[in-house]
Amino acid sequence: MILRDPVHGLIAFDTDDDQIVERLLSTPEVQRLRRIRQLGLTSLAYPGAEHSRFAHAIGTAHIMKRLLERLSDVEEWIAPEHRLTPEARCEALASALLHDLGHGPLSHLFEEVLPSSAPHEEWTQRIVQDSGSGVNRVLTATGREIPERVAELIGGKHPLTYLARAVSGTLDVDRCDYLLRDAHATGVPYGRYDLDWLLRSLRFAPATTATSIPPLAIDAGKGIASLESFILARLFMFQQVYFHKTTRAAEWMVRALFARVVGQLRDGTPLAGVPAAIDAAARGRPVALGDYLELDDSVLWGALHIWESSRDPVLADLSARMRSRALFKTREITDQDEPSRTRALEIAREEAKRSGLDPESYVDLDVAVDVPFDDREDPLTVVLPRGVVRKPGDVSFLLGRLRGESLVRARLIFPSELRERIDRALDS
Amino acid sequence: MILRDPVHGLIAFDTDDDQIVERLLSTPEVQRLRRIRQLGLTSLAYPGAEHSRFAHAIGTAHIMKRLLERLSDVEEWIAPEHRLTPEARCEALASALLHDLGHGPLSHLFEEVLPSSAPHEEWTQRIVQDSGSGVNRVLTATGREIPERVAELIGGKHPLTYLARAVSGTLDVDRCDYLLRDAHATGVPYGRYDLDWLLRSLRFAPATTATSIPPLAIDAGKGIASLESFILARLFMFQQVYFHKTTRAAEWMVRALFARVVGQLRDGTPLAGVPAAIDAAARGRPVALGDYLELDDSVLWGALHIWESSRDPVLADLSARMRSRALFKTREITDQDEPSRTRALEIAREEAKRSGLDPESYVDLDVAVDVPFDDREDPLTVVLPRGVVRKPGDVSFLLGRLRGESLVRARLIFPSELRERIDRALDS
Amino acid sequence: MILRDPVHGLIAFDTDDDQIVERLLSTPEVQRLRRIRQLGLTSLAYPGAEHSRFAHAIGTAHIMKRLLERLSDVEEWIAPEHRLTPEARCEALASALLHDLGHGPLSHLFEEVLPSSAPHEEWTQRIVQDSGSGVNRVLTATGREIPERVAELIGGKHPLTYLARAVSGTLDVDRCDYLLRDAHATGVPYGRYDLDWLLRSLRFAPATTATSIPPLAIDAGKGIASLESFILARLFMFQQVYFHKTTRAAEWMVRALFARVVGQLRDGTPLAGVPAAIDAAARGRPVALGDYLELDDSVLWGALHIWESSRDPVLADLSARMRSRALFKTREITDQDEPSRTRALEIAREEAKRSGLDPESYVDLDVAVDVPFDDREDPLTVVLPRGVVRKPGDVSFLLGRLRGESLVRARLIFPSELRERIDRALDS
Amino acid sequence: MILRDPVHGLIAFDTDDDQIVERLLSTPEVQRLRRIRQLGLTSLAYPGAEHSRFAHAIGTAHIMKRLLERLSDVEEWIAPEHRLTPEARCEALASALLHDLGHGPLSHLFEEVLPSSAPHEEWTQRIVQDSGSGVNRVLTATGREIPERVAELIGGKHPLTYLARAVSGTLDVDRCDYLLRDAHATGVPYGRYDLDWLLRSLRFAPATTATSIPPLAIDAGKGIASLESFILARLFMFQQVYFHKTTRAAEWMVRALFARVVGQLRDGTPLAGVPAAIDAAARGRPVALGDYLELDDSVLWGALHIWESSRDPVLADLSARMRSRALFKTREITDQDEPSRTRALEIAREEAKRSGLDPESYVDLDVAVDVPFDDREDPLTVVLPRGVVRKPGDVSFLLGRLRGESLVRARLIFPSELRERIDRALDS
Repeated sequence: MILRDPVHGLIAFDTDDDQIVERLLSTPEVQRLRRIRQLGLTSLAYPGAEHSRFAHAIGTAHIMKRLLERLSDVEEWIAPEHRLTPEARCEALASALLHDLGHGPLSHLFEEVLPSSAPHEEWTQRIVQDSGSGVNRVLTATGREIPERVAELIGGKHPLTYLARAVSGTLDVDRCDYLLRDAHATGVPYGRYDLDWLLRSLRFAPATTATSIPPLAIDAGKGIASLESFILARLFMFQQVYFHKTTRAAEWMVRALFARVVGQLRDGTPLAGVPAAIDAAARGRPVALGDYLELDDSVLWGALHIWESSRDPVLADLSARMRSRALFKTREITDQDEPSRTRALEIAREEAKRSGLDPESYVDLDVAVDVPFDDREDPLTVVLPRGVVRKPGDVSFLLGRLRGESLVRARLIFPSELRERIDRALDS
Repeated sequence: MILRDPVHGLIAFDTDDDQIVERLLSTPEVQRLRRIRQLGLTSLAYPGAEHSRFAHAIGTAHIMKRLLERLSDVEEWIAPEHRLTPEARCEALASALLHDLGHGPLSHLFEEVLPSSAPHEEWTQRIVQDSGSGVNRVLTATGREIPERVAELIGGKHPLTYLARAVSGTLDVDRCDYLLRDAHATGVPYGRYDLDWLLRSLRFAPATTATSIPPLAIDAGKGIASLESFILARLFMFQQVYFHKTTRAAEWMVRALFARVVGQLRDGTPLAGVPAAIDAAARGRPVALGDYLELDDSVLWGALHIWESSRDPVLADLSARMRSRALFKTREITDQDEPSRTRALEIAREEAKRSGLDPESYVDLDVAVDVPFDDREDPLTVVLPRGVVRKPGDVSFLLGRLRGESLVRARLIFPSELRERIDRALDS
Repeated sequence: MILRDPVHGLIAFDTDDDQIVERLLSTPEVQRLRRIRQLGLTSLAYPGAEHSRFAHAIGTAHIMKRLLERLSDVEEWIAPEHRLTPEARCEALASALLHDLGHGPLSHLFEEVLPSSAPHEEWTQRIVQDSGSGVNRVLTATGREIPERVAELIGGKHPLTYLARAVSGTLDVDRCDYLLRDAHATGVPYGRYDLDWLLRSLRFAPATTATSIPPLAIDAGKGIASLESFILARLFMFQQVYFHKTTRAAEWMVRALFARVVGQLRDGTPLAGVPAAIDAAARGRPVALGDYLELDDSVLWGALHIWESSRDPVLADLSARMRSRALFKTREITDQDEPSRTRALEIAREEAKRSGLDPESYVDLDVAVDVPFDDREDPLTVVLPRGVVRKPGDVSFLLGRLRGESLVRARLIFPSELRERIDRALDS
Repeated sequence: MILRDPVHGLIAFDTDDDQIVERLLSTPEVQRLRRIRQLGLTSLAYPGAEHSRFAHAIGTAHIMKRLLERLSDVEEWIAPEHRLTPEARCEALASALLHDLGHGPLSHLFEEVLPSSAPHEEWTQRIVQDSGSGVNRVLTATGREIPERVAELIGGKHPLTYLARAVSGTLDVDRCDYLLRDAHATGVPYGRYDLDWLLRSLRFAPATTATSIPPLAIDAGKGIASLESFILARLFMFQQVYFHKTTRAAEWMVRALFARVVGQLRDGTPLAGVPAAIDAAARGRPVALGDYLELDDSVLWGALHIWESSRDPVLADLSARMRSRALFKTREITDQDEPSRTRALEIAREEAKRSGLDPESYVDLDVAVDVPFDDREDPLTVVLPRGVVRKPGDVSFLLGRLRGESLVRARLIFPSELRERIDRALDS
């Protein structure tokens, strides 16, 4: 199989080792990822951000393939028993392709709002291990124990610890693909980093004991800049895209909207158009795998369309605003202390009340936090000439200055009709 | 309004003249374009081709804005009465943004299969002129006669004929955007051409009579290469993307599938999940505008999902194949003569029959045709030094050799299980 | 050795097989290529075209390395005795790196004007085979017979004929690099083609007899577009860059200028600042290799600087015009017939005479000719499904229409002060 | 005049306002910049870095033109008497084009080694103001006082202070071009930033007093990321290119070599091949403008070629090493304290002595220092919503953490034959 990819150019899974990828691609669970946008509601802020988790899954498998090639090039530095086996390669490719399998539409929201719903990671495990899934059938055909090992590897566990870190770690293949792909789709140039050079910089660190498996590391001679640019690409994408005020506002609206749905269902109020999986989760009942897999972006938008005519005026209003992109506005709160923020929220909610809007559903304080770089708990190291091993933050001018620092964006969220009142109240 | 766009980088509609764009963008009819993929089924062949008509509409308006700037730079060459008025600028921007408004999902298919349905151009006219649409309200607020003039301009008619050609012509803003955007999304590099240089090459040809409106032309001194690369970009995109065998096969499957739906509805067979607009069109009844606007990609895929359980085994089978991407295969027929092709089709259909498959719904000959370049009926000209005007094909080495030539791709289409039988039958 | 390259990104010669490249790079003959611009006088028309033959030599070796990797991937299709040996790989890399070694500054001019001078290909052979050269020493250290085999391979001869064609043929590694590099440096986007996809499309054609070495071919399934785009890239670069009117005019001026130098030297007129190699060649004496290697761009420009004060007024004038970029102008002659062109030249020369300028040194007709594509005498083929072999022009819409066609650019060349007179005389 | 540029694509100086650029371009002083590489010796480390100061000068003028357009778009925010006049525009374009006019080859070295030589900024002033220069003639033809005003503006002084800062400041047009151009030529991707967005982010800050000229500022709403990426691009280019160990070693070698030349000339030792300007400077005599303008890269490399046969063995050796790229090696000294560094240098010089090499000419400690960002003394500000003005470091997560921090690279420099001894001595 040879594919054109807008991010990586030519993607080929055409060797014997790669066949697992082509077989997995044709399963309904992987095909379902075509119906879920990688960036959820972000296309409301960046019109180009319409790419699906399917394209990202392929890209991630491609990067894993390239990583495996790099590991082959440098495996002479480690003991034979620590090298990749054909099975490990197969597990690695499958894990890269399947790592997002359990995502629902707007998945993080879904998890937050529907308390009894499992996190997407758990759904991924279920799909991989459920004997009824196409994915499970393909994996089992390769080896009876493969589904379990793939599920473990996706969860970050593998006897070859360096492989586990490549699926889930600071430099994992998931991040490697999504930064480039999200940058390509949004048109935000800052998310690009130098993948070729980064892969080429990978090497094994000296093993700490005779029997321990050596971890992957960055070669200082050629790799520090590519590592820095990777960390910065991620930071920029958080600042520009993932924490974008319009996206955050839209996400908050969906959360508020689902809180109404859950409330209605729990109260026993009849509500049309509720997908079975959501209905079950809202009522605290187990969600069937088949029902979960029915969920995708269009199912969700379809439900919103129906709820525009709901009898709950708040639900109807929020649904209509979402559909017509009448998104809530934000106001940045630069004060970092908790009491100031709380006071700002109180003032804003007071204004909502005065305007006859339910503060719970119409005004909130949104605090987004990320730590762009922290190598204090992270096994990633840099290898200097003569085998000296150091933390990246100890040798990089930039990373040393970012280590452990928190990026925080606090904003009030409210409907546009409150803009003037809230600004006036807060500026006075 | 300032936007990031993956194709054009920074897009700004921030002057007084541009406000029409921002106002139109927030109408439900334009927002609906977010739910229709620009390239229909192409993402089944190129996973990246997931961009919507919405992003393309914005890009087209952006190119129109740049074109209007270029026209201002060269308007000194034409009589004042032939220059752009503020109204014409407004109409031009609106037309560029709205040119695709009437597209349904997989729109060309829809038109072919549902005979009584209007073509998408007509739907665009209806939406623009229907006093109930948001688009109409915004346009009317600008001027009572604006909706009609915009509808006419989208249809390729305007007193300033050069403007009409910029909306619908060899070098129109629609093509200018979609070639770049489809290339960006698919990852096919051949669709890129040099937009900056092409715009800069535009000038007015000398008017042929004192009162006639001079047409736009390409300046030979700097523009022929950019025109050539534009024509070639289009040719490459046809060869690589629009005529891609997988896409053509999928499109044919949807056509076959809809033929079954129409058949069932006409026969009075009950069929669940048929969207109202399709139901009306299939029965030869007028389609209400509101029903038409409810159609989008997810509605269509939702219908296919339901039809997987239809009692019509062919409809159920074709729907299931589409959903699981078990797409039909193709075999290129290089013989150009009609009888050879017909014979190939007959042989293949015979094989279908022998395998118990209905030839009408499972085998066909697909002939795709495009004329990449023809300037014999086209007003586009090139202006040489000293004001000499020539046809592009007369001054370009490449275009002269392409003029009027037809690109033809003829293929048999059939399910993969017939591959071996058909190949054997035709190769023997 | 790992390098950053603006065209290919990361270039690595870091395996045992590649060591020959690093060793050759540090020889004075290869380092000399830093002092010769790849595109000669083209930077007078495209200011960015300042890249040297050194960077191109590295890029060419890099593409050869990638080609060798591709050949390894597909070698299972050919008989073991036809596969690449380690020696052949070494010869291939060396030949790619060294293919331009014999170029002098503005090399083609040099050969035309100095009749007794050898063509640059011959100089390459001499440098490679001269036991005094650093290059020879490095090659001989690898194997006594290597210099001769490398010289032969550069000349297009090798027992593995497909390797010979990769060094000198329609798709050779030289072209593959210079198109991309010249496009990158000039900023002309049309010279880009899809190298990754082109390499991936290469395969062996079926051998015609049991013992014959199978030639390389393009796989029709994925390669025709990449071949087309390569041929078109070359055509565009000829039209836009290599045949650019300003470059052609400057080259003609240097030719005219050197004709004066040769004339002076043959007449025995003393002339300062003549490099030894030019002096010898002009007098019809053998040119010493050491003297030849002293020539580079700066030596040439240095000589022109001195000749600005020559007593020959024509030589002084032409040298001064070159140094101050007072380049001659051109007028395109679109008439294709010989007599019309000759008449145009006569008219223009008449005008020169009337203005007191020596027609021989100030006016000429420049006819540039290239055949962009011709597969009638070329072994390159395309392999269709089921092993059918065809000529590219028989399966490609575009190439079929370009086959054997000649691109011709005929122009009068003259000093700018004659522009008005010549235009008037020819337009009347 | 319309140009292709590899960095900016299309560059046009085709309005009446721009004519000054075209006229200046044809002067010998600007044409001379073709013969001086922008990055001096960097092509010894990055083979692609062969671009000249000429291409950079054009690119800088292009960015100035775009900046002037942006200033026109936002000038409504400032008082009419503070807006750009046609004369100011002309001065701005000329200053951008001419800002590097006084650079000699490897200019910074030249200044350091030849104590009596003026810095390149002073030479720029002299060329602009010398009535014998072509540049001066062109400027004077525009206005008698223009040369002086252009000279002042290049020096960072202008009544419109925001214009002065655009020629010489944190975000000046010089930097804006060279970062992109150096990144393009070297292939280092980290030097790219988002020029379009940065220009679009510029606005005037509120004036501090009624009569003061408002400074340029960054609009916080859309500009902080583009400012951050600009600062980081510069930081990356310093780390990767300008402070590259190979370049620094080569520069040090040239410095050591010139110290020998100066020593010889002061001692009265005859030395062939010394360019007149260098001879004068070395002897502490005034350097004539004409002699200075004769200097360029090829003159310098020509001198090195001659000095390979000098009777001073150190000068001959260093010249030969430079010509054959037998460059000195480096060893990073990570200890930041002065005494440790000094001790390392002493140890290394001791090893040189033991090997019979003059420590002064063969071993040194090279300390490169840059402060990537400091807004404490810099007038650059960011304008938040509601007109609030802040320092960039106060609103940017990244810049706040870089403010005032010093990037330091300390390295020992020595010939490769000392590598082993020095490593051993220092590691023991």
